[in-house]
Amino acid sequence: MDSFATLYKEALFSNVISFWENHSVDWKNGGYFSCLDRSGKIYDTDKFIWLQGRQAWTFSMLYNEVEKNPAWLNISQNGITFLEQKARNPKGKFYFSTMADGRPLVAAYNIFSDCFATMAFAQYGKATQDAHYMNLAKSTFDQILARQSNPKGKYEKKTGNRPLKGFSLPMILSNLVLELEHILDSDTVEHTLDQCIHEVMQVFRDKESGLIYENVYPDGKKSDCFDGRLLNPGHGIEAMWFMMDIAKRRQDQTLMDQAISSVLSILDYAWDPEFGGIFYFMDSKGHPPQQLEWDQKLWWVHLETLVALAKAYEHKPSAEIKSWLQKVHNYSWQHFADPENDEWFGYLNRRGEVLLDLKGGKWKGCFHVPRALYQCYQSFEKSNI
Amino acid sequence: MDSFATLYKEALFSNVISFWENHSVDWKNGGYFSCLDRSGKIYDTDKFIWLQGRQAWTFSMLYNEVEKNPAWLNISQNGITFLEQKARNPKGKFYFSTMADGRPLVAAYNIFSDCFATMAFAQYGKATQDAHYMNLAKSTFDQILARQSNPKGKYEKKTGNRPLKGFSLPMILSNLVLELEHILDSDTVEHTLDQCIHEVMQVFRDKESGLIYENVYPDGKKSDCFDGRLLNPGHGIEAMWFMMDIAKRRQDQTLMDQAISSVLSILDYAWDPEFGGIFYFMDSKGHPPQQLEWDQKLWWVHLETLVALAKAYEHKPSAEIKSWLQKVHNYSWQHFADPENDEWFGYLNRRGEVLLDLKGGKWKGCFHVPRALYQCYQSFEKSNI
Repeated sequence: MDSFATLYKEALFSNVISFWENHSVDWKNGGYFSCLDRSGKIYDTDKFIWLQGRQAWTFSMLYNEVEKNPAWLNISQNGITFLEQKARNPKGKFYFSTMADGRPLVAAYNIFSDCFATMAFAQYGKATQDAHYMNLAKSTFDQILARQSNPKGKYEKKTGNRPLKGFSLPMILSNLVLELEHILDSDTVEHTLDQCIHEVMQVFRDKESGLIYENVYPDGKKSDCFDGRLLNPGHGIEAMWFMMDIAKRRQDQTLMDQAISSVLSILDYAWDPEFGGIFYFMDSKGHPPQQLEWDQKLWWVHLETLVALAKAYEHKPSAEIKSWLQKVHNYSWQHFADPENDEWFGYLNRRGEVLLDLKGGKWKGCFHVPRALYQCYQSFEKSNI
Repeated sequence: MDSFATLYKEALFSNVISFWENHSVDWKNGGYFSCLDRSGKIYDTDKFIWLQGRQAWTFSMLYNEVEKNPAWLNISQNGITFLEQKARNPKGKFYFSTMADGRPLVAAYNIFSDCFATMAFAQYGKATQDAHYMNLAKSTFDQILARQSNPKGKYEKKTGNRPLKGFSLPMILSNLVLELEHILDSDTVEHTLDQCIHEVMQVFRDKESGLIYENVYPDGKKSDCFDGRLLNPGHGIEAMWFMMDIAKRRQDQTLMDQAISSVLSILDYAWDPEFGGIFYFMDSKGHPPQQLEWDQKLWWVHLETLVALAKAYEHKPSAEIKSWLQKVHNYSWQHFADPENDEWFGYLNRRGEVLLDLKGGKWKGCFHVPRALYQCYQSFEKSNI
C-alpha cells in the first residue's frame, strides 16, 4: 500500500490541480469559473471573489513551494489581473461577487474577499518578485487592519447592544500575517502574531473544554444566545493548525501542546457517533442551532482536520492522534473522494451520502482540497508515514 | 374516523393554540418567546419581530373569526404593546430582533417585520375597534409601500447590474391588502390587488410550466443565475391560495383555475419521489442550488400546501386534488405532528426524520400551524369532508 505521503501527493497533482487547470480558467475575461459540476462542466459563470483570490493563491503557492511551473504562474496571473482590475470598488475594497466579465454583483461588504486577495497578491509577488504586487498585498492588508473593528461598515445590521466579536477575523489574521512575512517588517509580524495567539487561545478558546466559540464578549465571556452558543468545529480545528504553524516557528511547545489538545477535544465533541464524520455546526448547550445544515458533513471541515492531525502527529506523535488520523482519513477518502471523476465532493448529508454533486460552487473552489493535500503530504513526508 | 374538518379543528384548539397560550407569553416584558423546545420549554429569550407580529395577529384573528375569547385578545394585546412600544426604531421601522426586554439586536433591514406588524395592528384594530391601531396599521402599510422599490435601503448589498426583483414582497402584499380591507379605501384595495395579481400570475409565474420563480427581471424574463433559477415550491403554493382568496372575492374563475393549476404543477415538480414530502428549494435547470437545506422538508411548506389543496378542493373538487390532499395530509400528520407533545415539528431531513425537535425558533412561531389548521377546517367544513 502507498504511504499517506504518496497518496496525498499523487491525488493533489493528478486528480485535483489538473481538474482546476482543465476546467476553471476563464482566459477571456481573466479570473476563474468556480461553479463546476461533477465532471468539471461550468454550470454558472458568476465569480465569487473569495474563490478568485484563493485559486490565484493556490497556483502561486505551488509555484513557490513545489515547482517553478510557468503554466501555474500563468494561471495565477490570470486571477491576479482579474482581482486587480475588476474585483475592487473605487475605494479599493473587494466586491463579494461579479459577473463573468467583472461587472460587480454584490458589494464589498465582506472583508474576507480582501483577505484572500491579499494572500493571492503576496504569493504572486513572491513568485514574480514584482514589488507592485507586494505593495498591493501590503496596502490591502493595511486596509483590512483598519477595518478590523467594523469590517462590515454600513452593512452591519447588528446594534451594539450585545457586543459579541467573531472568531473568523482573528483566526484568518493569524494565517494571513505569516503569508505576508516577506512583505511586512518583523515587528509588525511578531506583534500581530502575539495579538492573534492571545485572541484565538485566550479569548475564543474555552480553557476547560478546549472548544472554540464562534462569538464571545471582548473579554472572552460567553453569551447564552444563538450566536454565543455557536460552535463550528471545522473552524476551530483549522485555527489550531494555524496555531501549530506559529508554535513551530516560535518553538513554543506550550502553544503547540494546547493547539493539539484542542484539536482532540473538538474531535471528541463533534464526531458524529452514529454515522461518522464531523458535524458542521453545534450548539454548546445542546439546543437546536439556527443553521439547518448543522448535521451535514463538509469537505473543508474534514480536510482541515486532516491537516491538523498530520501536523499534530508530525510534532507530537501518539497513538491517539494516529488513530484519529486513520479514522478521519478513512471517512474522507470513502465519502468525499469521487471514485469516477477528479476533485472531491463538497457537501454530504449526515449519513455521508452526496447532497450536492458539484465540485465547485459559491463557496467551494480551488483551495481547501489542494491546500490540505499539499500540507498533508509535506507533513506525512516528515513523519515518514 | 373523524372528518378532516373535525381533525384539523380539534388539533388547532386542543393541541396548538393551547401550546402557545401556555408556553410563549412574556407577561413581564410584553411580546412572546418563540424559542420553545419539544415540550414547550424556553431555550432562548431573544425576540424575532416577524414572529411577534405573527403571533399577535393569530390571537386577534381567532378572536375576530372564531370566538370573542378575552384571553385571546389579552394575549394579542401583549404582543401589540411590545410591537408598538419596543419593536420600532425612531423612524418607525421595525427591528428584525430584540432582546427579551426589547433592546434592539438586529436593525430594521427587513421589511417583512413591518408587514407582519401591520397584519397584527389591523386584526387587533378590528378586534378592539380602536382607531389608534387601525391608524397604526395604515401608516405602517403606507411606509411599506413607500419602501417597496428599495426595501433594504442602505443594507442592500446587490448592485444594480442584474436588476432582478424578488417574489416575496408582491406575494405578501396580495395577502396584506385583504388583511387591511377594513382600513383602506376600496380604490386602494382594488388597485393594489390588480397590481399583485399581475405581478404574481403574469410576471413571476411561468405560463408554460405553471412554476413560480423567486427572482425575475422586471418584465418577467428569466435570468440564468443562482437567484434566477431558484424555485421555492412552498412559497409558490402559498401564493396560489392567496390568489384563490382574491379569485373567490372577485368571482374570477380564470384566476381561480390558473391558481389551482399552478398548485398541481408545483406539486408534480417538487414532490420527492423517493422519500415523499415537498423539497424546500430547487434549481429550475436542475443545477446544484446554493441552499444546503434544499432537500429538507419544512412544516410551513406542507401546511401551506394543505391550505391550497383544501381551497382548491372547495372551489373545484376533483379526484386529482383529493388524491394530492390525502397524500400531503398523510405525509404531514405522520411526520410533522408530534405523537408525544403539542404543536408540530418544523424541520425534517429529506427522509422525513426530525432534524431539529424545536417547536419554535428564529423562524417558526405561532403562525403557519394555527393559520393553516384554521384555514383548512373552515374549508373542509364547506366541502363537507
